[in-house]
Amino acid sequence: MAAVLKGSFYLLGRYRKHVDLVHVSARHMSSKTQVGFVGLGNMGNPMAKNLLKHGYPVVATDVFPEFCKEVQELGAQIVDNPAEVADKADRIITMLPSSPNVIDVYTGPNGILKKVKKGSLLIDSSTIDPAVSKEMAAAAEKQGAVFMDAPVSGGVGAASSGNLTFMVGGAEEEFNAAKELLTCMGANIVYCGQVGTGQAAKICNNMLLAIGMIGTSETMNLGIRLGLDPKLLAKILNMSSGRCWSSDTYNPVPGVMEGVPSGNNYQGGFGTQLMAKDLGLAQNTATNTKTPVPLGSLAHQIYRMMCARGYANKDFSSVFQFLREEESQ
Amino acid sequence: MAAVLKGSFYLLGRYRKHVDLVHVSARHMSSKTQVGFVGLGNMGNPMAKNLLKHGYPVVATDVFPEFCKEVQELGAQIVDNPAEVADKADRIITMLPSSPNVIDVYTGPNGILKKVKKGSLLIDSSTIDPAVSKEMAAAAEKQGAVFMDAPVSGGVGAASSGNLTFMVGGAEEEFNAAKELLTCMGANIVYCGQVGTGQAAKICNNMLLAIGMIGTSETMNLGIRLGLDPKLLAKILNMSSGRCWSSDTYNPVPGVMEGVPSGNNYQGGFGTQLMAKDLGLAQNTATNTKTPVPLGSLAHQIYRMMCARGYANKDFSSVFQFLREEESQ
Amino acid sequence: MAAVLKGSFYLLGRYRKHVDLVHVSARHMSSKTQVGFVGLGNMGNPMAKNLLKHGYPVVATDVFPEFCKEVQELGAQIVDNPAEVADKADRIITMLPSSPNVIDVYTGPNGILKKVKKGSLLIDSSTIDPAVSKEMAAAAEKQGAVFMDAPVSGGVGAASSGNLTFMVGGAEEEFNAAKELLTCMGANIVYCGQVGTGQAAKICNNMLLAIGMIGTSETMNLGIRLGLDPKLLAKILNMSSGRCWSSDTYNPVPGVMEGVPSGNNYQGGFGTQLMAKDLGLAQNTATNTKTPVPLGSLAHQIYRMMCARGYANKDFSSVFQFLREEESQ
Amino acid sequence: MAAVLKGSFYLLGRYRKHVDLVHVSARHMSSKTQVGFVGLGNMGNPMAKNLLKHGYPVVATDVFPEFCKEVQELGAQIVDNPAEVADKADRIITMLPSSPNVIDVYTGPNGILKKVKKGSLLIDSSTIDPAVSKEMAAAAEKQGAVFMDAPVSGGVGAASSGNLTFMVGGAEEEFNAAKELLTCMGANIVYCGQVGTGQAAKICNNMLLAIGMIGTSETMNLGIRLGLDPKLLAKILNMSSGRCWSSDTYNPVPGVMEGVPSGNNYQGGFGTQLMAKDLGLAQNTATNTKTPVPLGSLAHQIYRMMCARGYANKDFSSVFQFLREEESQ
Repeated sequence: MAAVLKGSFYLLGRYRKHVDLVHVSARHMSSKTQVGFVGLGNMGNPMAKNLLKHGYPVVATDVFPEFCKEVQELGAQIVDNPAEVADKADRIITMLPSSPNVIDVYTGPNGILKKVKKGSLLIDSSTIDPAVSKEMAAAAEKQGAVFMDAPVSGGVGAASSGNLTFMVGGAEEEFNAAKELLTCMGANIVYCGQVGTGQAAKICNNMLLAIGMIGTSETMNLGIRLGLDPKLLAKILNMSSGRCWSSDTYNPVPGVMEGVPSGNNYQGGFGTQLMAKDLGLAQNTATNTKTPVPLGSLAHQIYRMMCARGYANKDFSSVFQFLREEESQ
Repeated sequence: MAAVLKGSFYLLGRYRKHVDLVHVSARHMSSKTQVGFVGLGNMGNPMAKNLLKHGYPVVATDVFPEFCKEVQELGAQIVDNPAEVADKADRIITMLPSSPNVIDVYTGPNGILKKVKKGSLLIDSSTIDPAVSKEMAAAAEKQGAVFMDAPVSGGVGAASSGNLTFMVGGAEEEFNAAKELLTCMGANIVYCGQVGTGQAAKICNNMLLAIGMIGTSETMNLGIRLGLDPKLLAKILNMSSGRCWSSDTYNPVPGVMEGVPSGNNYQGGFGTQLMAKDLGLAQNTATNTKTPVPLGSLAHQIYRMMCARGYANKDFSSVFQFLREEESQ
Repeated sequence: MAAVLKGSFYLLGRYRKHVDLVHVSARHMSSKTQVGFVGLGNMGNPMAKNLLKHGYPVVATDVFPEFCKEVQELGAQIVDNPAEVADKADRIITMLPSSPNVIDVYTGPNGILKKVKKGSLLIDSSTIDPAVSKEMAAAAEKQGAVFMDAPVSGGVGAASSGNLTFMVGGAEEEFNAAKELLTCMGANIVYCGQVGTGQAAKICNNMLLAIGMIGTSETMNLGIRLGLDPKLLAKILNMSSGRCWSSDTYNPVPGVMEGVPSGNNYQGGFGTQLMAKDLGLAQNTATNTKTPVPLGSLAHQIYRMMCARGYANKDFSSVFQFLREEESQ
Repeated sequence: MAAVLKGSFYLLGRYRKHVDLVHVSARHMSSKTQVGFVGLGNMGNPMAKNLLKHGYPVVATDVFPEFCKEVQELGAQIVDNPAEVADKADRIITMLPSSPNVIDVYTGPNGILKKVKKGSLLIDSSTIDPAVSKEMAAAAEKQGAVFMDAPVSGGVGAASSGNLTFMVGGAEEEFNAAKELLTCMGANIVYCGQVGTGQAAKICNNMLLAIGMIGTSETMNLGIRLGLDPKLLAKILNMSSGRCWSSDTYNPVPGVMEGVPSGNNYQGGFGTQLMAKDLGLAQNTATNTKTPVPLGSLAHQIYRMMCARGYANKDFSSVFQFLREEESQ
């Protein structure tokens, strides 16, 4: 019923608001019906588990069958491909590594849009180019479905504990429906605007994060060379205008702070390779919109050089180590 | 008396700690005797006034006689040159535009060191190359005087209200004596370590500040072009890992925040030209210590380009404006 | 006949070489039959004229009908859209502003591939992302046609005088057929390798060109500030290891060299905006192939900033002017 | 006699030209009298030998006595320190590692200026900050001596074969006297202008060289990743506007060119560490003259990072290797 109403509002223009309300509450009532999930990797796995924990029946798939085992044991139904997921669920969450995967999962031969039901809500939590999000939204709209982008911040830990932040782009009237599901997996659900703005917010944040991290690393390294004690320098920066998240919460210098990757040989955390990927997205969107991002662009290059020099799998705060003189010299 | 004791400890090696205590308390007792002040510009003027307000007799000088009028009317004694200041006061504060001025005021033909008394305490609040601070300290030590570097953060407003932050480098046993005076002019007095570390802390903070400001400007500009509302984007960044002082306290986008230069056509605040100067110092110290500072270096270049294109006297947050498309295009 | 043979060789595997020879000579014999041309802008117009001058009947189209007038008066047949061009000619040259235009002209609803004949030779001289060239080649191959990328270096002047350089990517056995046409429009026809390598060569050259030009501008500016005569400095660089095309052939400093845009207020030449576009392509291909290009990336950002500050239509050597202090300061 | 005349011209203003002529010819006549040499390292050693080969008696010194042996065996007189050199010779050449060494050799307690004769010609071939050259010239002038800066391009090989290029700054009327000596050691002797411009020319050339080398390395690496054959790409660049010394004479890609360090595992040539030093000088002079040098500055940072990562002693063309993916990844 919801699906029918949903699909029809594209034809009904002037009744849209009203229909939406009907639709939303209809979908709300059906809230413990199937939720689809595509992409059961490091992030997708704990996210799907949290949906199960909250009582949602989950129907899921992944190109790697072994990734499906854990959620299957917890009660999820595993199907062959995204189209099958769409056949069984009218709310679907996707969590994939990159733009081509998203394009394939939505518009490929066995993609969601092959069997999507009218009125379905499709939420993509992958971090991809906002232009691709817009394309997917347009393709979904042609089938009478709604696509929202909802990339996350927070890593595997936050995914496990249900503490992710979701940045959501898409039709505002669908936000509550999306929020209902996202709340099972995240602590902050932020509405950002039209489709693609969730990605935009994510990309912007990570670009500034990378700049702050490299900047903090350069600064700490310089200060240490000039004779400052690193803990004292961090303290001074943190009470001054140099303060940033990388200096006060995730300091890259071993010994300055506890419980962060710099204290654990840069293991865990957010890999340099993943940061390089996000900076590549930022670079592409900046290039495509003709926006100058000089520091963002250089940050991208530095993380790219780090990937080429063996830092791909270390936490992105290892840029401090990369900039320091090697021991052997 | 203090001067004699002070001077003598250079000869007395093993009794140093003991003598210092005697000395410090001696100088403390004489705390309302003359304080010298060299450099009565935008910053020096309100700083000297605060000393007068706290009851210190001030003997001052400046190469521009007209800069001396205000403090003279408030009771300061004006003399011809730094040497004369040193002749009349054994605690002297200097506040000068750049390294060559400091070198001249201390070691020039009419410099402080020409007439400095043994045991004098010389505090330089200029922002200069830490290597120059070390040279001045060495030259002062030859005359039996103590030199400390104590650059400030906070602008003319903080100088007037006595709310500067002082970052102090020099012999730890002299810190209390310095603090006694600096407390009249500042709210935070931070001991940083050996001579030059005050400058190091200042330079490090400002380098990271510049990186954060340009990074925030790029990010806000990119986000706006991608369809995000600037206030919302600032809010998202500030609750996420992109957070920094420039995003949450001094946002460069007009309309995002009140009471900052971006809301006032980038007037007031901290001039681009001054930031370029500090970044030049950071660059020089990094070059001299062979420390890579890729983002700091590019930040320097960007502020340098801005100076060349008419932004010299605008607040340094005007980099947001510099990066945006011109209206006329 | 050629078309039939051509198309069939996709099925005939082992006879390919032989068939190709037959095909090529067949197409060669028909060399004064129709040549299609899509895109009659600043570059396309003189290129199409040169084909006409060499006796080739031309059938052409452009989205702007007024761009078609000149070649029509010279004897070209004008048709409605690229599909119509493909209907009338089995050798087609396209010269378009950017990747989306190319995608539309080839694969759009009225695109070349809608009516392309088997065995046709499609040569794209646009400067675009090599990945798009590869996509177009794959799409053309499905229709039994051959696609080659053949971007040019040299501007409107070289296009008019038939002195362009073409960098050609695609099946080596088709190179001679392509060369026959390209020779009418260019003085150097260079075979670069598989499809996309023509673009790669163009992009690589322009990235290094931009780096050399900005580098030369910085260097000349610095030398002048240090007291060197600009002509003397150029002479020294050009006999030393600093030598590059921008220093010895296209010097950006007014007065150093005659007949270059720097001597004519940076009018004419290769616009900053076009350079920014090519650097954007370089950036995208570097990002997509995970290749670090730190200077290329910064060069891109600098040209992007120049576009934002009123330099979009000046020659790209105006970066010298951009970096200099403004007169008014 | 020459010394007296020389010294006196500082007092004689209006007769200067005349006196100079007398002086120059006087020094010319005495051309086979003693020439002083300070600094017998990798470069100074072969340079001093070339003076001996040309029949000049040489009086030399170095802080490391073992560096003096070779020239001593060839007939040079070895003395204790620069002051002793100045006592015995009125034409002195210095070849030292960096600015502090130059300051010490000229103005230190046993420095040249302690015993320099009036009218002496002091030629410094070290690569240092032009501001230091100016200081030395001013100090020399006070003693009635003439100081010229004459840094070289070309490495140890060119020094041995007498094929260095000298870039000479200083009083034009002394250039011929300097040239007489420099011709024994170099093939090109270029007069650049006032004192310091020799350094300026050297620094400018090397900054542009570094930019060109990194740019060539990025470009070649990108092209290779995009499927271009490196030799072909080099050929295309070298016939196009991307051409530069690093692409056509000293290509950084192994196998593209013979007889260059890239073909010999980046051994020999011009060390990364030395390039980083020269870029540091360029950076300092740019900072001090408030000149924006964005690419020069980033080039500096990249060579600095390379030094920190084990490339210090490899040829500076090894930046190609630094930017490539490591084998082990």
